[in-house]
Amino acid sequence: MSADLSRLSLNTATTKHLTLAQAVEAAAAAGLGAVGPWRDRVQEAGVEKAARLISEAGLRVSSLCRGGFLTAADDAAAAAALEDNRLAIREAATLGTHELILVVGGLPAGSRDLVATRQRVADRIGELAPYAAEHGVRLVVEALHPMFAADRAVVSTLGQALDLAAPFDPDVVGVVVDTYHVWWDPQLRESIARAGAEGRIASYQVCDWVLPLAAEPLNSRGHVGDGFVDFESITRWVAEAGYAGDVEVEIFHEEVWAAPAERTLATMADRYARHVLPYL
Amino acid sequence: MSADLSRLSLNTATTKHLTLAQAVEAAAAAGLGAVGPWRDRVQEAGVEKAARLISEAGLRVSSLCRGGFLTAADDAAAAAALEDNRLAIREAATLGTHELILVVGGLPAGSRDLVATRQRVADRIGELAPYAAEHGVRLVVEALHPMFAADRAVVSTLGQALDLAAPFDPDVVGVVVDTYHVWWDPQLRESIARAGAEGRIASYQVCDWVLPLAAEPLNSRGHVGDGFVDFESITRWVAEAGYAGDVEVEIFHEEVWAAPAERTLATMADRYARHVLPYL
Repeated sequence: MSADLSRLSLNTATTKHLTLAQAVEAAAAAGLGAVGPWRDRVQEAGVEKAARLISEAGLRVSSLCRGGFLTAADDAAAAAALEDNRLAIREAATLGTHELILVVGGLPAGSRDLVATRQRVADRIGELAPYAAEHGVRLVVEALHPMFAADRAVVSTLGQALDLAAPFDPDVVGVVVDTYHVWWDPQLRESIARAGAEGRIASYQVCDWVLPLAAEPLNSRGHVGDGFVDFESITRWVAEAGYAGDVEVEIFHEEVWAAPAERTLATMADRYARHVLPYL
Repeated sequence: MSADLSRLSLNTATTKHLTLAQAVEAAAAAGLGAVGPWRDRVQEAGVEKAARLISEAGLRVSSLCRGGFLTAADDAAAAAALEDNRLAIREAATLGTHELILVVGGLPAGSRDLVATRQRVADRIGELAPYAAEHGVRLVVEALHPMFAADRAVVSTLGQALDLAAPFDPDVVGVVVDTYHVWWDPQLRESIARAGAEGRIASYQVCDWVLPLAAEPLNSRGHVGDGFVDFESITRWVAEAGYAGDVEVEIFHEEVWAAPAERTLATMADRYARHVLPYL
């Protein structure tokens, strides 16, 4: 008997070279319940058509990746970033997903001031929140692994993401638990419990920490079970925190991208069934 | 007028290819106040002779690098690790330094259980603490950057290091603030203040976070000022926390290792004078 894959979602970055239509077809054929599209693939298809494609395949949209990059120090770049995030909010609404993932951005060029940069992120989330609320979309702050603090995200822990979200309605600003980014955190169990108690867990994303790191460390994310992440414990904590949503597999890895999509989906389903589903 | 380098210390890993005698000579010639030797260079010289070499050059020993690797799951490996740490404690005492840096070790082969591994570290620090106290040596828990959590150190934040140290006399178990490992931490300011209030700051180590990461990420540590670390803020926090000890420069980087020692020491002194000393 095959496993229940109804909560399993394909993040389209995992099948980087597929169009949205192809990714949707692969996910549906593998029996998944949802997809988590990236905006480039959505825009390529056209947002309305993307929404149709996904719903006609009988799939949910677990989240939209991604808005963010809110750390610019100059006004023009900041205004452009806010504008792009408003577009992302409208795209999420059209796709029928409640969850817009935000990668907040790194230090602006020439700056070493993490404290001020983090404050800008807080301020700009505040600027976007009313617009997100109007559109029924939640801004989902993603903590990235601290090795990306300089260049991609000055939000480095789940606890910090929750502190950023705290001033806002949990239905408007939430957080994502991405195992790759947070698995090492000694405060992880407490932070997941807090996120659940506050009603802020918007997404659970799974992939593994594998070594050695790739030359581009961003592309070191491996299939669940291939690395060092304790999926049993983390999944239990997420479940105990009351999360009942989709589980997205988001892998950036040259070898996974080079593999046939069918094989990638089969591996995803197998690993999910063995390492995640039993503890959900 | 040249800067006061009396608190500047050369960690011998920065001049990896020098013998201890050569490193001591280079540090003294550059006007530094101290060296922080690694055990391999000390053992190569002989511990008694190493102590003499350093004191005859008019230098202090700011710390000894390093003990630790306390995470083994099997009894024989655990016993061997404890034995090696007792040797390191005696070496530190002979060298006349109070501070023995510990890199605690990563997940043991085949394990994904961070919680249990971290508990073993706590237990083994407990086993070593009385021996360290007898010898007048402090066990200095080093938090390593979270990208090393799997393979080198399951202690990933200064706060976690302080929690590990908490059950012990601050004169017996302390922590080190190494900018490379902790610069990204949103709780850094609070953790440094706590470390100071508890009297546990045993060492301040400086080097910079540079990108891209080296193929061996361990060797990505750059000269102060070459990367993203906010030395002004962190140094102020360390000073405000009451730290009055040495500032060790510990750089692992192929290019730095390939440079002539004189040039490395000159760069160290210049960067210290510009980016650290004004805020100490």
